[in-house]
Amino acid sequence: MQQWLDQQLKALNLVDSMNQKDGFTRLGYSDEELKSMAVFREIAESLGLTVRGDEAGNLIARWDPQDEHLSKPAIVLGSHVDTVTQGGGYDGVAGVLCALGAMKALKDEKFEPDHPIEVICFASEESARFGISTIGSKAISGLLEPNNLADVQDENGVTIKEAVEQTGLSWSTIEQAERKKDEIKSFVELHIEQGTVIENAGAQFGAVSAVACPIRLKVTVRGKMSHTGTTPMGMRQDALVAAAPLISYISEQGEKLSNDSEHAIVATVSTISAKPNAMNVIPGTVELGIDIRSVDDGLKEQMAAMIKEKCQEIEEQHTVSIDIETLVNNPSVKLDAELMETLCELGEAEGYRGHIMISGAGHDVMNMAKKWPSGLFFIPCQDGLSHHPEEHATLEDLHMGVKLLMAYIKCQALVEKSLE
Amino acid sequence: MQQWLDQQLKALNLVDSMNQKDGFTRLGYSDEELKSMAVFREIAESLGLTVRGDEAGNLIARWDPQDEHLSKPAIVLGSHVDTVTQGGGYDGVAGVLCALGAMKALKDEKFEPDHPIEVICFASEESARFGISTIGSKAISGLLEPNNLADVQDENGVTIKEAVEQTGLSWSTIEQAERKKDEIKSFVELHIEQGTVIENAGAQFGAVSAVACPIRLKVTVRGKMSHTGTTPMGMRQDALVAAAPLISYISEQGEKLSNDSEHAIVATVSTISAKPNAMNVIPGTVELGIDIRSVDDGLKEQMAAMIKEKCQEIEEQHTVSIDIETLVNNPSVKLDAELMETLCELGEAEGYRGHIMISGAGHDVMNMAKKWPSGLFFIPCQDGLSHHPEEHATLEDLHMGVKLLMAYIKCQALVEKSLE
Repeated sequence: MQQWLDQQLKALNLVDSMNQKDGFTRLGYSDEELKSMAVFREIAESLGLTVRGDEAGNLIARWDPQDEHLSKPAIVLGSHVDTVTQGGGYDGVAGVLCALGAMKALKDEKFEPDHPIEVICFASEESARFGISTIGSKAISGLLEPNNLADVQDENGVTIKEAVEQTGLSWSTIEQAERKKDEIKSFVELHIEQGTVIENAGAQFGAVSAVACPIRLKVTVRGKMSHTGTTPMGMRQDALVAAAPLISYISEQGEKLSNDSEHAIVATVSTISAKPNAMNVIPGTVELGIDIRSVDDGLKEQMAAMIKEKCQEIEEQHTVSIDIETLVNNPSVKLDAELMETLCELGEAEGYRGHIMISGAGHDVMNMAKKWPSGLFFIPCQDGLSHHPEEHATLEDLHMGVKLLMAYIKCQALVEKSLE
Repeated sequence: MQQWLDQQLKALNLVDSMNQKDGFTRLGYSDEELKSMAVFREIAESLGLTVRGDEAGNLIARWDPQDEHLSKPAIVLGSHVDTVTQGGGYDGVAGVLCALGAMKALKDEKFEPDHPIEVICFASEESARFGISTIGSKAISGLLEPNNLADVQDENGVTIKEAVEQTGLSWSTIEQAERKKDEIKSFVELHIEQGTVIENAGAQFGAVSAVACPIRLKVTVRGKMSHTGTTPMGMRQDALVAAAPLISYISEQGEKLSNDSEHAIVATVSTISAKPNAMNVIPGTVELGIDIRSVDDGLKEQMAAMIKEKCQEIEEQHTVSIDIETLVNNPSVKLDAELMETLCELGEAEGYRGHIMISGAGHDVMNMAKKWPSGLFFIPCQDGLSHHPEEHATLEDLHMGVKLLMAYIKCQALVEKSLE
């Protein structure tokens, strides 16, 4: 199995070796994503699954039970194959690969499902191209709002609508990708952790209780640009000097709030740009991008309120004006508690030590969870490194992933049988 | 005179109105600079001056005394007509314009110089294109090092050598622009202040004692990039959080050091860039550009040493590594003290209130001062705004500039006559 996983891992990543200096770049609705999806189709078909593409560009590989008249709801697995720019080869791919591996192993065992099983390869999960994440799973869950998105552009000025239509789909029918409630029984995603919580807990896999979705703020500090050489220290309205204590504050108070609260919170100034950014000009304008996450939405709001208050204090102290714009405010998503317990117990029964944890990153599962009982497995990744060319998960951990998903599918079948 | 100044101001700026939303862009050795220099030549020739271009692209407009056998050293005025990108129409142009205005007024008065008088329009004063400033005046002063500069590129990949040769000059002879010591008696530049010191002192013009040249540092803070959502607050190596207290420190300690010292000092973090600068990634690397200026070189060194010490402290506190590179360390330039006193007295005799001050910005005069007695007049500019489309000096102040330069030339002639 590990050899098979290694081969398909490289095939899905369109490479002969996972050692790629510049990493992997397969943006959403790009030719590269389509090529990787074509490999997904090939592997799935080689395993005897029936593959169809939907109206949003998702690929759905389906294993129908022999008793087709049963027409029960499907047990669904899935993740994505698109990446950020110069990302890693495991974020998304691991989930798709382990799900296909589970299909292979079940087929090899002559397993006969009493439910349809599906593996979905979701389109355009990363926000790297359009600033909009999980487009494919939003469409399946009925959460996509095509009218609000059509004109959003990538850095080359291509709109989402154009990008989707360049793949041969029609923007006007994208909403038809939505699946009915009774078509799906449950959804489980497997993903690399992108952190080191599993390792630090001395565990081998994670069973996720909730996905912490972000509040994102854009803070614009406006001072006055002037010549660095001719403006005395006491007479400046330096936007960068005004922004600096805000950066320190967010880090310090974020840590304090996290330590003092039941749930963790993270708060990051992740982007900064100064204008005119010239060696002999005092920065006149500084723009900060702030990302705040917690499974506790109240904590996120509290942090955002603290930032607003600090900005008022800075406005008074530094003779600058500060605008705060809320770019994103997504409530965090609780996953199905019973399903999480099941995932954890199944893993332990397979001989792996599980850790119940939250996900700080968003995943396709957060959309699926709004409509169907949903769960998320994490497998470790080396040093927690992700969105990076050196992102790595071991073949042993990928193999564990296959076993976890197999156990889950068998258990779903068993539950049904015991009820019959 | 003011009407004439207004006309020639627009002509040198190649516009019909000084109200230009996008300002003025005439980079060094560009077609735009050449066009403005052609206007300079036209005006100078219309005043009866003889104009020649030198090997570095400077234009030299000369008024020879009728007694040509005297062959005395020249009394030289001058500044530049190149600008930064989207800069103002007065930085440089004011000095060239007032010098030409003084020629016109002296001609109108039938003044007969006993020394040659020159107005030099220096090539490529701004560092905006190549990161190298005052190329023309470096060449005249014998300070240009063509071998070290030839391959420096602008943002389009054009080298200085290519840019110079595109104007019809030869890079191999650029050093021949150097003038002999005994060809020039003294040099005086007039420039807009680019600050508000004159206004705050209740004065009308500035006589400059020294030019504060910068120490420039590039500070690179290396932490570790990781996912904003999956990396707990206490486990981060956030390069931006590490850089923030350095920004605050430089501002606070710069002001303190300036207040505690005989000479002023300014210290500015003027540029910042974070990598990867993505909303969901903790900044892994932050680069700061720091500009430190004072006429007291010891103070600059002290500030640079304090910054280095602070960086060591930050390295320990934030688990980051910091590299400091000195990009520039130019000793500050003292201007001729006697000449400065003369300029100040001459202005006061004309009925204007003068203020003795330093220049925080570099000018062509700092090169000329290394070889000849040199002085610098400042005239006010509105709100101290410079390198900006709204940069403005009044016609009244430009007219004052003409009178200051006229008085200076007459005085130089008188001194000679009284000595004869």
